Amino acid sequence: MSGNTFGEIFKLTTFGESHGHSLGGIIDGCPSGVFIDTDFIQKAVNRRKPDSLKTLGQKNNPATERSENDEIIIQSGVFEGFSTGTPIAFYIKNSTAKSSDYNNIKDCFRPGHADYTYYEKYNIRDYRGGGRSSGRETVSRVVGGAIAQLFIKSLYKDFNVTAFTKEAANIQCTEQMLNDFANNKIDQSIIEKNPMRTINFDLANKMLDKISDLKEKGDSAGGIITCFIKGIPTGLGEPVFDKLDAELAKAMFSIGAIKGFEVGDGFDCSKLKGSECNDKMFFDDKTNKVNFLSNHAGGILGGISNGNTINFSVAVKPVPSIMIEQDTITKNNENTKINIKGRHDTCLCPRIIPVVEAMSSLVIADMILRHRSSK
Amino acid sequence: MSGNTFGEIFKLTTFGESHGHSLGGIIDGCPSGVFIDTDFIQKAVNRRKPDSLKTLGQKNNPATERSENDEIIIQSGVFEGFSTGTPIAFYIKNSTAKSSDYNNIKDCFRPGHADYTYYEKYNIRDYRGGGRSSGRETVSRVVGGAIAQLFIKSLYKDFNVTAFTKEAANIQCTEQMLNDFANNKIDQSIIEKNPMRTINFDLANKMLDKISDLKEKGDSAGGIITCFIKGIPTGLGEPVFDKLDAELAKAMFSIGAIKGFEVGDGFDCSKLKGSECNDKMFFDDKTNKVNFLSNHAGGILGGISNGNTINFSVAVKPVPSIMIEQDTITKNNENTKINIKGRHDTCLCPRIIPVVEAMSSLVIADMILRHRSSK
Amino acid sequence: MSGNTFGEIFKLTTFGESHGHSLGGIIDGCPSGVFIDTDFIQKAVNRRKPDSLKTLGQKNNPATERSENDEIIIQSGVFEGFSTGTPIAFYIKNSTAKSSDYNNIKDCFRPGHADYTYYEKYNIRDYRGGGRSSGRETVSRVVGGAIAQLFIKSLYKDFNVTAFTKEAANIQCTEQMLNDFANNKIDQSIIEKNPMRTINFDLANKMLDKISDLKEKGDSAGGIITCFIKGIPTGLGEPVFDKLDAELAKAMFSIGAIKGFEVGDGFDCSKLKGSECNDKMFFDDKTNKVNFLSNHAGGILGGISNGNTINFSVAVKPVPSIMIEQDTITKNNENTKINIKGRHDTCLCPRIIPVVEAMSSLVIADMILRHRSSK
Amino acid sequence: MSGNTFGEIFKLTTFGESHGHSLGGIIDGCPSGVFIDTDFIQKAVNRRKPDSLKTLGQKNNPATERSENDEIIIQSGVFEGFSTGTPIAFYIKNSTAKSSDYNNIKDCFRPGHADYTYYEKYNIRDYRGGGRSSGRETVSRVVGGAIAQLFIKSLYKDFNVTAFTKEAANIQCTEQMLNDFANNKIDQSIIEKNPMRTINFDLANKMLDKISDLKEKGDSAGGIITCFIKGIPTGLGEPVFDKLDAELAKAMFSIGAIKGFEVGDGFDCSKLKGSECNDKMFFDDKTNKVNFLSNHAGGILGGISNGNTINFSVAVKPVPSIMIEQDTITKNNENTKINIKGRHDTCLCPRIIPVVEAMSSLVIADMILRHRSSK
Repeated sequence: MSGNTFGEIFKLTTFGESHGHSLGGIIDGCPSGVFIDTDFIQKAVNRRKPDSLKTLGQKNNPATERSENDEIIIQSGVFEGFSTGTPIAFYIKNSTAKSSDYNNIKDCFRPGHADYTYYEKYNIRDYRGGGRSSGRETVSRVVGGAIAQLFIKSLYKDFNVTAFTKEAANIQCTEQMLNDFANNKIDQSIIEKNPMRTINFDLANKMLDKISDLKEKGDSAGGIITCFIKGIPTGLGEPVFDKLDAELAKAMFSIGAIKGFEVGDGFDCSKLKGSECNDKMFFDDKTNKVNFLSNHAGGILGGISNGNTINFSVAVKPVPSIMIEQDTITKNNENTKINIKGRHDTCLCPRIIPVVEAMSSLVIADMILRHRSSK
Repeated sequence: MSGNTFGEIFKLTTFGESHGHSLGGIIDGCPSGVFIDTDFIQKAVNRRKPDSLKTLGQKNNPATERSENDEIIIQSGVFEGFSTGTPIAFYIKNSTAKSSDYNNIKDCFRPGHADYTYYEKYNIRDYRGGGRSSGRETVSRVVGGAIAQLFIKSLYKDFNVTAFTKEAANIQCTEQMLNDFANNKIDQSIIEKNPMRTINFDLANKMLDKISDLKEKGDSAGGIITCFIKGIPTGLGEPVFDKLDAELAKAMFSIGAIKGFEVGDGFDCSKLKGSECNDKMFFDDKTNKVNFLSNHAGGILGGISNGNTINFSVAVKPVPSIMIEQDTITKNNENTKINIKGRHDTCLCPRIIPVVEAMSSLVIADMILRHRSSK
Repeated sequence: MSGNTFGEIFKLTTFGESHGHSLGGIIDGCPSGVFIDTDFIQKAVNRRKPDSLKTLGQKNNPATERSENDEIIIQSGVFEGFSTGTPIAFYIKNSTAKSSDYNNIKDCFRPGHADYTYYEKYNIRDYRGGGRSSGRETVSRVVGGAIAQLFIKSLYKDFNVTAFTKEAANIQCTEQMLNDFANNKIDQSIIEKNPMRTINFDLANKMLDKISDLKEKGDSAGGIITCFIKGIPTGLGEPVFDKLDAELAKAMFSIGAIKGFEVGDGFDCSKLKGSECNDKMFFDDKTNKVNFLSNHAGGILGGISNGNTINFSVAVKPVPSIMIEQDTITKNNENTKINIKGRHDTCLCPRIIPVVEAMSSLVIADMILRHRSSK
Repeated sequence: MSGNTFGEIFKLTTFGESHGHSLGGIIDGCPSGVFIDTDFIQKAVNRRKPDSLKTLGQKNNPATERSENDEIIIQSGVFEGFSTGTPIAFYIKNSTAKSSDYNNIKDCFRPGHADYTYYEKYNIRDYRGGGRSSGRETVSRVVGGAIAQLFIKSLYKDFNVTAFTKEAANIQCTEQMLNDFANNKIDQSIIEKNPMRTINFDLANKMLDKISDLKEKGDSAGGIITCFIKGIPTGLGEPVFDKLDAELAKAMFSIGAIKGFEVGDGFDCSKLKGSECNDKMFFDDKTNKVNFLSNHAGGILGGISNGNTINFSVAVKPVPSIMIEQDTITKNNENTKINIKGRHDTCLCPRIIPVVEAMSSLVIADMILRHRSSK
C-alpha cells in the first residue's frame, strides 16, 4: 500500500520522477464552486523554482542554477473557471532533464540520499536525479497547496499561511526579530525580497555569506523554518489520532529533508512549569471574543485549533549532495568513493518554504471539510 | 470524519472516556497465527498504571496516586491462543471513576486542557476527567501496541523498542550517559528500576527532588523522552507522504502532551554541514552486512528504514492540571478563576514512555504489512 | 488489510465470533448531538433475534429455535443521552453458546459454508458455530444501523427504510401486491405481523407451509427481499466509484447469503427500450417540486439519489445447513460425509430483513456526511 | 469526500470529463518489477473504442460512429520497461470533442442521464457530453485494468477474465450455448469476431437486426453481460464487509449503466433448495486437488474465492440518449421537451464488456495484495 495520497476528504495524489515525462497529481474532494485562479497557482509554482530566488537577490544565491520551466496544465475538474466537484488533475512537463549527469551514480548510493533505501525496498531504482525521491516531487504539492488555499480563502478571507527561514548555517533570527514578526511589526513582504526568505536583510546577508563559504568548499548547510497560520476557525482537528498537530507533523515530515517539528514552545516546553506553559483564557469585552493571554501552545489544544495563531518550526538537514568525495558502496556491496556532480542547492530552506506553506494549506483544507461532520 | 483509527493495514480503532463504562479498541488486520500472549499484554497495561511507578521507588513519585485496576478482556479474534485473522476486540472496565471530583470544572474550561476546543468543536462535552481527551485514553493504545509487538516479534526476534526519560524538570541526561546507553554500556533494565524511567539512578533522584519541589508548590514539569527501535528490516516506510518518520511523527503528536518530535540529530541538523551530517556507508566484511559509519539520520533515509537503529525524541509539556488558581472563562464566556482538584501527575514522562513504545510498535507493524506489497 | 470497517465518514467497525466472548463494534464519525435512544436500538436488536419471529406467528416458523438474549451495552460516546462526537462502542455478550454442537464439523468443511475458504485464507479456523462467518455477526450491523437511523431521522424526519420478503421457497408476491405496497395501499405494519415478514397474510401462510415441508425433509429454501428507502434528499452518492447504488450493492453483498442485487427495474432493464426505461421529469405545480412520471431507475441516476423512492431487491440463497447427509472433505483432504446437527433457520429471508435495513441506513448516513463536502 | 479512487492497496484514481483537456488516472500501489507492456495497454484501450467494433463486423453496428483517437501516455512509475513501485500516471488527450453538439442540453436535463442529479449535487455542471458522468470516463478504468492484468499475470499465468453479451434487446444465449462456453466447447476468440461480443454468430446477427430496428425508430436496447474469471488462487476476499463478491458488486455498479448484479446462480438461488444449491466438495485423486461437483456459488464462499471459476452477470440498461422527443425540465424548473442530437450507442453491451473485465481485474489485483497480510 503505497503512500502517494495526502488527506482524507480534500485529497491530493501525486506522481512523477525527477527526470520522467512529467510530474503532477489529482485533487479529489475539492468542493464545487471554488474559483480556480490559474494565475495564482502558476505564481505559487514559480515561487518554488530556483529561478525565483535569483530575482530576490544577486548575491551568493543558495539555490541551484538549474532552470525549470514549470508550466502547469489543468486537465479536468474546472468548468468556466470554477471547480465542478470532480477531480482536478494537473501536470507539469519535465523539459530540462539531463539524465547523463547521473551516470556516475547509476550503480552506487549517494550518502544522505534515499538511493540505498529505495533500492532495498523496490529492487529497482530510477536513479536519474533521484527519481521519485527528488525534491522536484514537491512541485505537485505546491500546486495542490495553492488549490487548497483558493478553497480555504473562499470561506475564510483572512486565512494566511506564511513561513520564513528562522535559522540557516548556524545563523539565527534574534528573539527580537521573531517577536516583531509575530506582532506584525515586520512587513511580511520582506520574505520575498531576499533570497534566504528570512525576516531581516542584514541577517539574510550573513546567512548568504556563510552559505557561500560552504559552497566554495563543496559543502552545504541546514536550517530551521518557522511557519504561522492565521485566520482559521476553532475546532479543526480530529481526536484522537488525527489531531491537527499530528497531521501537520506528518505533513512536514513527509517533506524530504525535514528532521524535526515542534509546535508553539515545542522542545522548550520541556523546561517550563505548568504555571508558565498554560495559556490563560479571558473574554475580551472590546472584541467580544474569547482570547488567550499567551500562546505557548501554538494555537492547538488537545489536537484542535483554539482560535489563536498556529505556529510551528521545522528543522531542515543540510543538502546531502556535496561536492566532496565520500565513502559509499555499490549495488553489489563493494566499497567505493563517490563524487557527486551537477548543480545542487547549498541550503534548502528558502526553497522548502513554499512547500511548508503548501502542505499546511492541504492539512487545513482537509480539516475544514472533516470538521463539517463533527456536529 | 473522526480520527479514532490508527494504521492502514494493521489498524487500531479505540474508544472510551475517562469516566465512561469502559475503554478499549479493535485491532483489524492482525495476521492469523500470532500467539496472543495475554500475560504480556496485561503486563504492558500494568506498566502504564500509576501504581507501576510506585513499585519502582518510594521517593517523591511523580505519578498520580489514583489507583486503576486495568484488567484487559479480549473479546474476539483469538482461538486456542492464536490470532485467527479476524478483528481482535478488547476492553478495560472503568472501575474507580469519581465523577464528583469534576463538578467544579463542569461549566468552565481548564487552561492548557482540551476542554475549550472540544466544546467549540462538538457543542457538548463529557467533562468528567477530561472525557475522551484524558490521558486515560492511551490505555487502549498500550494494548494495541502490545499486540503489535507480539506480531512483530513473531517475525523479527531481535525487535526491540525502548524509550526513557532524557530530560525532566530541566534536568537532563549527559552526552556520556546517552552515548553509553546507545552503545549498550548501560543495561536497559535500569529504566524499569526507577520511577522516572531514566537511565541513571542519581539523575533520577535529582529529577524526583526537583519535581517534588514543584508539586509542593502546586506546579508541574515537562521533559523529553528518547526512543530507540532496533531489529527491524530495511525498506519500511512508504514514499512520499507516508514516510516512516512521517508516520512516527503523527503517532507521537497524536499523544496528548507532545509538543515536539525529532529524528536522529533532529533540530541539531540545522547546525551541521552536509559533510558532517551524511552517514557514510560501507560493506563490513566481518558481518557480511552493509553498515554506516554514523547515524545522524536516526535510521531513516528518504522516509525508509535503512537498517540502522531508529532513534527519535519527543518533547513533553508540563502537566496542565496544576493546583494554583488560574484565570479562565465559563461556557457562557464569563471571566472566572479555576481551582483544579483531584490527584494528578506532576510530570508525565515516565507514564508516557509505554505509550511512546506502543505507538512506535503500531507504526512498525503497519509498515511491515504495507511493505509486503512493495515488490 | 482486513475488511471489518464499513463506511468512510460514518464508520462502523465490527468484531465477534458466533461462540466467542461477545460481539460488537465501534461507530466512529457519528456527529455530536444525536439522541441515542437505547430503547430504539435494543428493539432493533430484538427484531433480529429468532425469538422475534415466534411472536409474529405460531405456525411453521422458519427461524431457528435457538434463544439469544442480546442485551446491548453502550460503552462510550454518549453523555447524558446524546452523542458527543467521540466513538460509540457497544457489545453484546454471547450467553448461550454451545460449542460442543460443533465438534463434528471441527475437522471437515460444511458444503455451502465459508469453512473451507476461511481455512484456506487463514490456516486456522474458529469452527464453533461458523465463527466470524456466522450470521450472528450481523447483530453488530443491526446496532450500527439503528444508530445510523437515529442520526438520519434527526435531520430527515420522513426517512423510512422498509424491507419485506418478496419471494420465498418459490412463492412470490403478485405484481398487484407489489404495486399496492409501493402505492401505500398496504399498511407497512403487516410486515411485523407475520413470521415471513411479507406483505400478505395468505401468501405468508403459503410460504410457511412450503418451508415447513422442506424442513421436514431436512432441506431449506431461498428467497428475494425487496427494500424501499424514502425521505432522503437528492444528491447522495459520490461519482464515480462510490455511487449510491455501488455502495448499496457492496453493503448487500457483504451480507452472508446474498447472491444477487438489483436496483429499480434491475435485470428487467435488459428487456426494455430506452423509451420505456427513461423516467421523464416534470415540475409539479401543485407540490412545487420536481417529480418523475415513473421510477424504473429506482431513485438513482448516475449513482446519485434523484429524490424518488429508492428501491432494490436482493436474492437470498437457501440455508446451506441442511439435515441431509452430504459429501465433503476433511482438513486433511480426505473424502468424507457430513451430517450437520443443531438448530438452524430454514429460510433466511425474515431474519435478513433487519440486516438489509441496517446496512441501507449505514450507507445513507455515510452518504449524507460525505455529501457535506460536495459544495 | 469524493469517490474517484478504487481499491485499497492497488489503487486507481481517475479524472477527466468527456470534453475536457484529457482523461486519465494514477495507479498507486502497483508492486515494482512488473513489466508494463504498453502495447498490451494500448490494445485494451483500442478495444473500448467504438471503432474497434467496426472492425468486428460491417452490419448494423450498435456502437456510436464517433471516432476516438485514444493514445495512452504514461507519465511516471516505469523505468526501462518495469514498474518501480512509484505511482503510474497516465492520460489520454481528448481530441475530437465537439462541444457545440451539446448546446441544446445546456439548460435542461436529459431523462435517464445524470444531468439532474449532478446539478442538484454540485450546483454546477459541465454539460458538454455528460462531463464526468459520460461513459468516456471508463477509458481510464480500462487502462487501470490492463495494468492490473499485467500485475496479476506476472504471478498467475493462467489468469483469465472474459466477458460476453449474454442477452441484448431481448434476445438471449441459450442454456446450451452458455454450457458449451463454460465447458470450453466454444472458442473464446469468437467474442472479438462479432460486434455484439456474444458467443454465437447467428445470435449476434439476430441481436444486430433487432438493435438496428430500434435505432431506426430512434430507440435503444439493454442487455446482460456475463463474466468468467479463471486462474486465481483460493483465499481472495476480506471478511466481513469487503467480501470478494461485495467488491465485485461495487465495481460493477460503479459502471454507469449497470442496474443488476448476480454471482453464480444469482437470483435463481431464490428458487433452489439447500440440497440443490450447495456445491459438494471432493478431493480429486487424479489432479491431486480439491474440487467441487457443481458451481452454484459462482466460485465464492463466505466472500472468499474457493478455487472454482468465478462467474457473474450484470444487467445493462438501454442507452438513455434516444432520438425521440421526451418530456423534461429546465434548470429553472420549467417543463419542456428535449431532442437529443449527436451520435450515440444503441446498445452498450459490447462496449461495456472491456470495462467489466477491467473492473474485475482491478478487484482481483487489489485482493491479491490485501491477501498478503492475512497470515
